[in-house]
Amino acid sequence: MASRIRIAIDCMGGDFGLRVSIPAAVTSLSQFSDIELTLVGEQSAIESALPDTDRNRLTIVHAPDVVTMSDKPSHALRKKSQSSMRMAIDLLKDKQVDAVVSAGNTGALMAMGSYVLKTLPGIDRPAICSAVPSVKGHSYLLDLGANVDSSASHLHQFAVMGSALACAVDGIESPRVALLNIGEEATKGNEQVKLADALIRANQQLNYIGFIEGDGLFAASADVIVADGFVGNVALKACEGTAAYISGILNESFKANWLSRMAGFFALPVLKRIYQKLDPEQYNGASFLGLQGVVVKSHGSSNVKGFVHAIEQARLEVASNMLDMIDQQLTTLSE
Amino acid sequence: MASRIRIAIDCMGGDFGLRVSIPAAVTSLSQFSDIELTLVGEQSAIESALPDTDRNRLTIVHAPDVVTMSDKPSHALRKKSQSSMRMAIDLLKDKQVDAVVSAGNTGALMAMGSYVLKTLPGIDRPAICSAVPSVKGHSYLLDLGANVDSSASHLHQFAVMGSALACAVDGIESPRVALLNIGEEATKGNEQVKLADALIRANQQLNYIGFIEGDGLFAASADVIVADGFVGNVALKACEGTAAYISGILNESFKANWLSRMAGFFALPVLKRIYQKLDPEQYNGASFLGLQGVVVKSHGSSNVKGFVHAIEQARLEVASNMLDMIDQQLTTLSE
Repeated sequence: MASRIRIAIDCMGGDFGLRVSIPAAVTSLSQFSDIELTLVGEQSAIESALPDTDRNRLTIVHAPDVVTMSDKPSHALRKKSQSSMRMAIDLLKDKQVDAVVSAGNTGALMAMGSYVLKTLPGIDRPAICSAVPSVKGHSYLLDLGANVDSSASHLHQFAVMGSALACAVDGIESPRVALLNIGEEATKGNEQVKLADALIRANQQLNYIGFIEGDGLFAASADVIVADGFVGNVALKACEGTAAYISGILNESFKANWLSRMAGFFALPVLKRIYQKLDPEQYNGASFLGLQGVVVKSHGSSNVKGFVHAIEQARLEVASNMLDMIDQQLTTLSE
Repeated sequence: MASRIRIAIDCMGGDFGLRVSIPAAVTSLSQFSDIELTLVGEQSAIESALPDTDRNRLTIVHAPDVVTMSDKPSHALRKKSQSSMRMAIDLLKDKQVDAVVSAGNTGALMAMGSYVLKTLPGIDRPAICSAVPSVKGHSYLLDLGANVDSSASHLHQFAVMGSALACAVDGIESPRVALLNIGEEATKGNEQVKLADALIRANQQLNYIGFIEGDGLFAASADVIVADGFVGNVALKACEGTAAYISGILNESFKANWLSRMAGFFALPVLKRIYQKLDPEQYNGASFLGLQGVVVKSHGSSNVKGFVHAIEQARLEVASNMLDMIDQQLTTLSE
């Protein structure tokens, strides 16, 4: 029997803590027979939150402290060595588990991950990467805010990591990599992007397709879209804001009068299909790429379904040996 | 009788040239009784495109040359002094008109505008500003790509100009100004944004409300949203891409089977209302702020309705003395 994939869950993090993490853990165990979970957090609280379930593939590790959503990363790093987040990462460092999933404070998770696990050789800064829906499947967008003022060389590292992720997790042999820019001509963009364009183009390992603009995010023309963390974060949130705005108008419009309420009744199944396609929970699970370990961040306000998706993402990254694939590409690069 | 607002139209620019600019000019004349138009372009072509209409408030100025959409700005500036775009700007410089509207090459229009008209005292670089829809009315977003790698001081200038625009055109006494960032806490963001935050906050003339994130673009919490041109351009296009993606899914979903086609039939009036609210033509007309003259850019692929909207934007900026208002705020600032 192949060995199971061992995932540590920071049960206390996020806006909802145990109320989401525990049901997500239980659901994941029944959904994925090849995983075993270590629940890290306040033991007695976990015990009382856990339903009377089979604990065959489930371990609890007590952590007396919690990183709050408002803790500064530096404070969490210095003072919260007994927090559920930190202890989960320590388990990963000690190879007791293969991956960590947390819905907690993003900055603290990044700081602890970088400090405890260290970055892969050749990577200066880890990046946050998430899938975004496209007309066919999805694309990966990175960085989403871990790095602002990224240099061209950082953008190149993001390209390598994103490509390895798409290759490993989605089985795409030669993922198409694009650079987010404000035009498609070579003369457009800032210095950083122009330099990165040359660097990435020179890397024969990558299937680089050049620039893509903000309105091409959903066009499915690229498998991996690379951007500075400031730009990537604004872009992703602008998309989320637009989707929320439109779904708000949709809901309002179908309530305007009795005729539109009737139209809404008929349109309901169609609208449901649309919401499902845009459901952010379906795309939950941001990967921290570049660390010596698989770390997946679930959105702080995610529901159970979204948290399960983050656990699945961690499982896929371990099962596909994503870290080895990144490492391999980086080694070829440095030779 | 108050003197009329004189607007020069670059009739040859944009993807559709005369096919859009001439009908838009004719419509505008009948819609706004206080304007008179100067149509700049190939005279005989304009003559044949013009319907048999009253030419009372209409002049034609012959321009033998055209700036193409693929012309480099530097090339257009050096070689195309007889183009419709350049001659329209020259008319503005010579005070023969009060404003210019063009659907032509953005880079060339910015280069010619800056070179011929010069920037207002205290402004280093002009910015491109456009209205974006919000849950209540609209907000102004700038810069949209004229300036990449903007310094904190440039972002401050954008804030002053955007505020003056909202004040003049929309009559908002004290427009709320926000800075686009990747978080709402003071510790978030890149260096440029942190420095700009301090600069804008120190300006007592402005009603500065702090940071706003990408998903707050439509929240109507700010009247003016300031960003570096790279970031603003990506954000706006990401919104456009999302809207196009969703409307694509909507259309597809309502065609899926006979039941959804029926639902679509009932939902049609509601969907129309939604599309109208999101109609980019309604928000067409990007203002080039910071020049010594009113210059409005219509989108290159805009239809007649959108072009008319750009003419209306130019009319409003002239009628409200927007330039004086920017100038006044800048003078107070330098004192």
